[in-house]
Amino acid sequence: MSLYYHKVQYYETDMMQIVHHSNYIRWFEEARTDMLDKIGFPYAKLEEDGILIPVLSAEAEYKKVCKFGETVCIETTVAGYSGVKLRLNYKIWDETRSEVRTVGSSSHCFVDSSFRPISPRRCYASLDEALRGTVE
Amino acid sequence: MSLYYHKVQYYETDMMQIVHHSNYIRWFEEARTDMLDKIGFPYAKLEEDGILIPVLSAEAEYKKVCKFGETVCIETTVAGYSGVKLRLNYKIWDETRSEVRTVGSSSHCFVDSSFRPISPRRCYASLDEALRGTVE
Amino acid sequence: MSLYYHKVQYYETDMMQIVHHSNYIRWFEEARTDMLDKIGFPYAKLEEDGILIPVLSAEAEYKKVCKFGETVCIETTVAGYSGVKLRLNYKIWDETRSEVRTVGSSSHCFVDSSFRPISPRRCYASLDEALRGTVE
Amino acid sequence: MSLYYHKVQYYETDMMQIVHHSNYIRWFEEARTDMLDKIGFPYAKLEEDGILIPVLSAEAEYKKVCKFGETVCIETTVAGYSGVKLRLNYKIWDETRSEVRTVGSSSHCFVDSSFRPISPRRCYASLDEALRGTVE
Repeated sequence: MSLYYHKVQYYETDMMQIVHHSNYIRWFEEARTDMLDKIGFPYAKLEEDGILIPVLSAEAEYKKVCKFGETVCIETTVAGYSGVKLRLNYKIWDETRSEVRTVGSSSHCFVDSSFRPISPRRCYASLDEALRGTVE
Repeated sequence: MSLYYHKVQYYETDMMQIVHHSNYIRWFEEARTDMLDKIGFPYAKLEEDGILIPVLSAEAEYKKVCKFGETVCIETTVAGYSGVKLRLNYKIWDETRSEVRTVGSSSHCFVDSSFRPISPRRCYASLDEALRGTVE
Repeated sequence: MSLYYHKVQYYETDMMQIVHHSNYIRWFEEARTDMLDKIGFPYAKLEEDGILIPVLSAEAEYKKVCKFGETVCIETTVAGYSGVKLRLNYKIWDETRSEVRTVGSSSHCFVDSSFRPISPRRCYASLDEALRGTVE
Repeated sequence: MSLYYHKVQYYETDMMQIVHHSNYIRWFEEARTDMLDKIGFPYAKLEEDGILIPVLSAEAEYKKVCKFGETVCIETTVAGYSGVKLRLNYKIWDETRSEVRTVGSSSHCFVDSSFRPISPRRCYASLDEALRGTVE
């Protein structure tokens, strides 16, 4: 489980005076990127090494609104890793983690720079091992 | 069923040289707004009348990438309307509708300007009737 | 002079209940892209041909707010083209062009896919000629 | 002078594989918000108190590109404060502040929640004093 903190920005709000729902999908990406940093595989480095991890699906269920002025905590867990696919779950909390604001998930595959599917298990053993170690 | 066309913008792409996945959630909103225009209830007018339709959940499944230079067609269908909740399905096609790029959905409730739940059935009969007429 | 119409989207608003100022910079890009389409050089095609037109500077002066529910008209004029640099001016009007909302400008150079400066005058004569024809 | 650090996000890049130029305008806002936090007047609190600080103009001059994987440092200075208008300058550096990537500025006025101009000098003395103390 990885925790990532995000300060809500003014440009993330909409005229409903809450965070626009599309931004939660972006925060999931921020948290996912941060998790990869923490396990030693920064995503910028992965792309340099020719491994892209595109998003196959993303979903969010909004329970409570987030507002400008707040800092939120995004909890990321690796729900599954098969060697060719990856599934992450997210919980967006208030800063003190006393209230869940949004839950969501994303699923991913691995491709090379020509968008051909690849398997970390076969072509990037250290990443494969690191991801296996994160599954909860 | 409502069709809405969107020209992909450069600022919607990311360094994977495809449309960033968060933008599909925004395109769903564009298509939803357009559908409300078409049934005679522009969303700006609804908010002026004190009815907000926040997003309870949103999801997208990415099948094929969209690229800058393309125009896409977003097909919106009303999957359900209970009088208090609304569910929409989306299909993002290429311009000629020969290939599905992304499918998704969103669910919504109705609230007043203080975010108290309201029912169009009770307080906005014309909208209620229009929405009933769209369910497929 | 080229006119481009943009329907204001909900996700472009902020909690001040107006369009967030950063989006005007994006609308300038939309209008610029549209102008290139109109003179026969779609920007997606230019990038395929190995010509990128990065932004060197951008500025906007906000005179009146834009709101959700409106359609705005963006007027683009080519203020200068030297063979190696391009300067565009923009006026964002309400739909009927009776009120100016924002004025702005952007300047650009031309580079190849390795970001080395190039001159359309030397390496892309048809584009060079088309751009010369647009200067006002 | 106030320093603010921002980690470049994947969703901020475009297909030129650099940060999209519109995001610098958003980073200026992040840095401005952070500066207001530091002088004891969080912008969320100001809006609650009925003071809005809309943007009158914004400009950016791009010198070097920023890329995903980097952290940038945004230096904000208060270039002028007249009691009714505020002008800020920004420099975006790499993380170690050895290379300037972008310079820019923004100007602002002060309005109440009905968008009527107000003067902090007259109606919010503590903010007025704090802003005077920041001018360089």
